[in-house]
Amino acid sequence: MDIFEKLKVNRGPLGQYSNSTHGYFTFPKLEGEISNNMKFRGKDVLVWSLNNYLGLSNHPEVRRVDAESSKKYGLGNPMGARIMSGNTTMHEELERQLADYVQKEDAILLNYGYQGMASAIDAVVDRNDVIVYDSESHACIMDGMRMHQGKRFVYPHNDIEALKVRLERATKLTEKNDGGILVITEGVFGMAGDQGKLKEIVELKKQYDFRLFVDDAHGIGTMGENGAGTGVHQGCQDGIDIYFGTFAKSFSSIGAFVASNENVVEFLRYNTRSQIFAKSLPYPIVEGALKRLEIMRNEPQHKEKLWEIANALQNGLKEKGFNLGRTNSPVTPVFLSGGTFEAANIIFDLRENHGLFCSMVVYPVVPKDVFMLRLIPTAVHTLEDVAYTIDKFEKIKAKLDANEYAKDRFELVS
Amino acid sequence: MDIFEKLKVNRGPLGQYSNSTHGYFTFPKLEGEISNNMKFRGKDVLVWSLNNYLGLSNHPEVRRVDAESSKKYGLGNPMGARIMSGNTTMHEELERQLADYVQKEDAILLNYGYQGMASAIDAVVDRNDVIVYDSESHACIMDGMRMHQGKRFVYPHNDIEALKVRLERATKLTEKNDGGILVITEGVFGMAGDQGKLKEIVELKKQYDFRLFVDDAHGIGTMGENGAGTGVHQGCQDGIDIYFGTFAKSFSSIGAFVASNENVVEFLRYNTRSQIFAKSLPYPIVEGALKRLEIMRNEPQHKEKLWEIANALQNGLKEKGFNLGRTNSPVTPVFLSGGTFEAANIIFDLRENHGLFCSMVVYPVVPKDVFMLRLIPTAVHTLEDVAYTIDKFEKIKAKLDANEYAKDRFELVS
Repeated sequence: MDIFEKLKVNRGPLGQYSNSTHGYFTFPKLEGEISNNMKFRGKDVLVWSLNNYLGLSNHPEVRRVDAESSKKYGLGNPMGARIMSGNTTMHEELERQLADYVQKEDAILLNYGYQGMASAIDAVVDRNDVIVYDSESHACIMDGMRMHQGKRFVYPHNDIEALKVRLERATKLTEKNDGGILVITEGVFGMAGDQGKLKEIVELKKQYDFRLFVDDAHGIGTMGENGAGTGVHQGCQDGIDIYFGTFAKSFSSIGAFVASNENVVEFLRYNTRSQIFAKSLPYPIVEGALKRLEIMRNEPQHKEKLWEIANALQNGLKEKGFNLGRTNSPVTPVFLSGGTFEAANIIFDLRENHGLFCSMVVYPVVPKDVFMLRLIPTAVHTLEDVAYTIDKFEKIKAKLDANEYAKDRFELVS
Repeated sequence: MDIFEKLKVNRGPLGQYSNSTHGYFTFPKLEGEISNNMKFRGKDVLVWSLNNYLGLSNHPEVRRVDAESSKKYGLGNPMGARIMSGNTTMHEELERQLADYVQKEDAILLNYGYQGMASAIDAVVDRNDVIVYDSESHACIMDGMRMHQGKRFVYPHNDIEALKVRLERATKLTEKNDGGILVITEGVFGMAGDQGKLKEIVELKKQYDFRLFVDDAHGIGTMGENGAGTGVHQGCQDGIDIYFGTFAKSFSSIGAFVASNENVVEFLRYNTRSQIFAKSLPYPIVEGALKRLEIMRNEPQHKEKLWEIANALQNGLKEKGFNLGRTNSPVTPVFLSGGTFEAANIIFDLRENHGLFCSMVVYPVVPKDVFMLRLIPTAVHTLEDVAYTIDKFEKIKAKLDANEYAKDRFELVS
């Protein structure tokens, strides 16, 4: 069958609904400055969908450095991969500061988090090594593993007993072929907001030989002293052998880094395919990350404000009887009973009639009879925003309980 | 074996030499504005290592828009993946203009070229499809294929007869399982500078059913009318079913795009994993790309100047008897006989004693007794640069022929 014919017939899990979702539920446009208040389709909305956790997108010093550095260097400098012609003293300085920030010996910048994570996994394992990973791992981790030629074992999300069973199996396998074991999990799971059980996993090193690789995309900036991450928060950062942090969320930029001991970072510098074969991060992104890091270290008020809002939102919703699952991070999932159409009709009601913009997560990410409205609190939200939102959530919950949202069609009327 | 122990012992093909190469042959730092003249270790060098083909890095209008857009939006806006919260009218406008530029129905922006290419390949094929690809394909194509669960057949670089044999085999396989065939090659191969035989491959569609995916990273901006790419240059753009272009070279920025028919682009929007699960391109990158594209369409003098320099350099070197392989693009490889140590000692001589900075390519990319010095001409080079360089190349060639460069050690003295 012609490949293009196939793509016409099978549009994919999200693409099959694009006729009724595009521009609204998928590919919506939020306009204006990144903030708690933005515009959606010309109307003011209170936004709970952006990972601008610390509000750094519009921090005046961040904006000043983004502007000045882009003026000074342009967005094209340096050219080429780090290893060929794209290395600079500024890149190295940021690496040193990031390593210090997350309490590791060294760090390597990644020109983009997704490919950097995938390639870093690919680089450190060979066909004799076994990867053991959490079932809710991010797509970039999955893509890294899809390039792995050796065995991989998945364990049910955060299930330490199941992880032990996998480690037993992996140990037997690797004893035979002289391979090693790499456990991969996340600091904070971005969908449901629960932390990886890093401390318990690190404890398992007493029983099993393995290395631990943690993707802390949502934890860096939001968790631990100074926002140094989930490992620091749980008091087990030393047990994390390879630490990944991104600039795409708390840093509100792009790019990422991996930190580890000097040897491993040196190895990654010379063997991470997406880095040795692709262009280096532009100067303004690097200088902007230095400024953001400085702010994260010297201005704890942003993280404190984030948590004030997160706690108020989560406690307020819980007091009203909402089910927030197991979140223990700022990510605030609200689980409701119902199907995809009810979820969509609620999102429409929230946006059109209550001026509230949040994202929805439906089957197959969550079970068929459940959906999740995901709220991302940030340091630029206010307690008034929280009170307003809880009030509106009570209203839509009452309508949902009274079966007032259509279960079988996109209503798209109030 | 512990994974970290293994990484200590086996440092990888490039990493094993890092003690003697780091900071000089690998991870060198070029300082100053992207240009023909930059600083390397404090000394002025004439640079032939940067893919700033059209000289747009320092075009005043490019610099103005990079600066103004970064000031207006910061580097953090928009936040989130296109499909969730990171879509904007400006992203869509750039997609329309890129599609128009490369003569396709529609285009999808990619937040980074490497992961975008890998994921686009991953998205369009399933386990029943067969990929047939050129043996010199870029690392990002290889990584895309490494995620492919179906068969893949490699054909020797640009060998059309061998490609036909692979297509025969692929046709038989896909007839059995109702799969399709995807041929992947490049417009311009970045190492040796020769074009993919796109026209001849398109001709094969008369005999075989397949779709053609072309990575034109080095062709966009440099080849064809207005720089619209290698397919336009060869007069076979219609036969290219999926066209990939990057912003990392002629555009002197970051990011990329894929163009195809509306259906395929729509499918890619909803199914390209590195795009639906990772952050959108920042506004300043998008606005900067719009400006660069406008310049490429309206100011043909940059491409003309690039070719004036490329032709002068290539013709001049050929006249002096240098072997440039099969290049028919601006990429100018100079093949010399000798081993890795001679190559390194020549690079050192060029940089330290002649103020010439170019890159070297050694075994295993080329055979053991050959090395390549790769020159990248750009629109900011001058004919004086060309004359100077040819003169110096004659000098090092004479020394090489007289066995004056050590064959068994890094000399690193003049």
